[in-house]
Amino acid sequence: MTEFDLIDLFTRAAPRRGEGVLLGIGDDAAVLAPPRGEVLVATVDAVVEGVHFDARFTPEDVGWKALAVNLSDLAAMGARPLWALCALATPRGEDPRRLAGVGRGLAACARAFGVALVGGNVTRASDLSLTVTAVGAARAGAVVGRAGARPGDLLLVSGTLGDAALGLARGAAPALARRQRRPAPRVALGAALGPLASAGLDVSDGLVQDLGHLCRASGAGAIVRAADLPLSAAYRRATARRREPLEAALAGGEDYELLVAVRPRRVGAAREVAAKVGVALTPIGEIVAGSGVRVFLPSGAEYRPRRAGHDHLR
Amino acid sequence: MTEFDLIDLFTRAAPRRGEGVLLGIGDDAAVLAPPRGEVLVATVDAVVEGVHFDARFTPEDVGWKALAVNLSDLAAMGARPLWALCALATPRGEDPRRLAGVGRGLAACARAFGVALVGGNVTRASDLSLTVTAVGAARAGAVVGRAGARPGDLLLVSGTLGDAALGLARGAAPALARRQRRPAPRVALGAALGPLASAGLDVSDGLVQDLGHLCRASGAGAIVRAADLPLSAAYRRATARRREPLEAALAGGEDYELLVAVRPRRVGAAREVAAKVGVALTPIGEIVAGSGVRVFLPSGAEYRPRRAGHDHLR
Repeated sequence: MTEFDLIDLFTRAAPRRGEGVLLGIGDDAAVLAPPRGEVLVATVDAVVEGVHFDARFTPEDVGWKALAVNLSDLAAMGARPLWALCALATPRGEDPRRLAGVGRGLAACARAFGVALVGGNVTRASDLSLTVTAVGAARAGAVVGRAGARPGDLLLVSGTLGDAALGLARGAAPALARRQRRPAPRVALGAALGPLASAGLDVSDGLVQDLGHLCRASGAGAIVRAADLPLSAAYRRATARRREPLEAALAGGEDYELLVAVRPRRVGAAREVAAKVGVALTPIGEIVAGSGVRVFLPSGAEYRPRRAGHDHLR
Repeated sequence: MTEFDLIDLFTRAAPRRGEGVLLGIGDDAAVLAPPRGEVLVATVDAVVEGVHFDARFTPEDVGWKALAVNLSDLAAMGARPLWALCALATPRGEDPRRLAGVGRGLAACARAFGVALVGGNVTRASDLSLTVTAVGAARAGAVVGRAGARPGDLLLVSGTLGDAALGLARGAAPALARRQRRPAPRVALGAALGPLASAGLDVSDGLVQDLGHLCRASGAGAIVRAADLPLSAAYRRATARRREPLEAALAGGEDYELLVAVRPRRVGAAREVAAKVGVALTPIGEIVAGSGVRVFLPSGAEYRPRRAGHDHLR
């Protein structure tokens, strides 16, 4: 199988046309028309076999997740996704059917969120990996960064926390494993919250760690009421007998939920747009003057993290 | 060393600000203002240790080349470069000084060509690798694709061919090794040729193979006069005693020169802009009706490729 056969095999299923795509895959570079009156938002992320996925992931899971984690970053910024470029690295002798499956998973995620695959590259490497660059657009005034939160802002988080971390365990409930393998980026919610949030990010490294990033960038502190954390039924079942049942929700990674700071007068509107797109948006605390994140457990005691959060190099 | 330390170490030297950069590295995604009245051009490419570079490359060479090969793709499309996003993968225990060196090489290339590093990612993997996405801009009418060449167009190639392939050999002359390790993307020439070329690409997989791509995309054939291929003095010295002295110029990869098809009435203007940016632009043949690439050797015999060209998976 030559390089060109493999590129074709891998990209065959993906949507190649879409908004602004003037010239897609197949030339030296894609030619793209940026949407008028908007700014672009761009991010890059990689998934590597043995680091971000293992044999429990189907090939389709791998392809889906590689794009989904990038779309989550765009959603956190309040941008709607437009285009993706994907670099595939594959060991010699990898089963072409597996690579085609990875391509199908990527394509399914692209179709689900209206993304065109506009660039690809393939190379040999020791590990199977996908490195995806995603580009989206937003009105300049509706972009949500990490800086911008002010004391008094409420903190709201989408969906439920901790499921993906529990989904890593062998024998995890299917609902939890699915959150790990097929994360659903909050694309519609992110775009809807763009004009309403004062700051935000996606919870990829664990709530406490990511909230710490938001606080540092905003020059503020935060208080979280752990009793208010949104937990799924599967999460509650899986952690009912644990000594620290909230650990995964507070410090587990890969939730890909949105965490936003919202001025009190806009909280009603934020919860309304969330209801409209069908995603729960739960108040869990607030921004305070000072620095650092303080988490109060249901007992009233203060939470001390066992670890700081997810480190992609550990 | 944590993930955050490493990102800082790797990106410290790189220019982070530039045209259109509203929010750079450090948030979930970069926020970029596309230039008014232009289209965007985007491409992705990876360099992997053991595949694209080895121990003879300094860390700075690796970083330079990872960005340079992408800028060459933008130049081939007639675009000026604006922004790059870089995903670094590194084995556990890699020397941080080596990673800092790779970052400095990337930064040097970015500064040399006015590129801002707007996104980064770092992950563990078995091989050291860099995957770079580069984005540029051009007037819509000045974008150069592979399709668009017509019979009668002259074929012109920049610089000299075959040096980089010869530079792979142990004991290669420094001038040749440098072409392999520090390719100079034809950024200024590419942008200047944009309004003049009917089709073009960069010669990365070998002249004959890349010209074949251009011919297929354009629905035409081509004739090349091998006696006219531009060769460096170092190339002539290194191949003087070879039985097939033109093989590397015809089929060697990684030249990162521009190959353009130009209507006869525009050839004078094309050579003028090349002279203005200080790069040789040599006529080597022409586009003809039909299909396929025919190369006539100085002897008058027709060249038969020993191999089709560079395949990144071989």
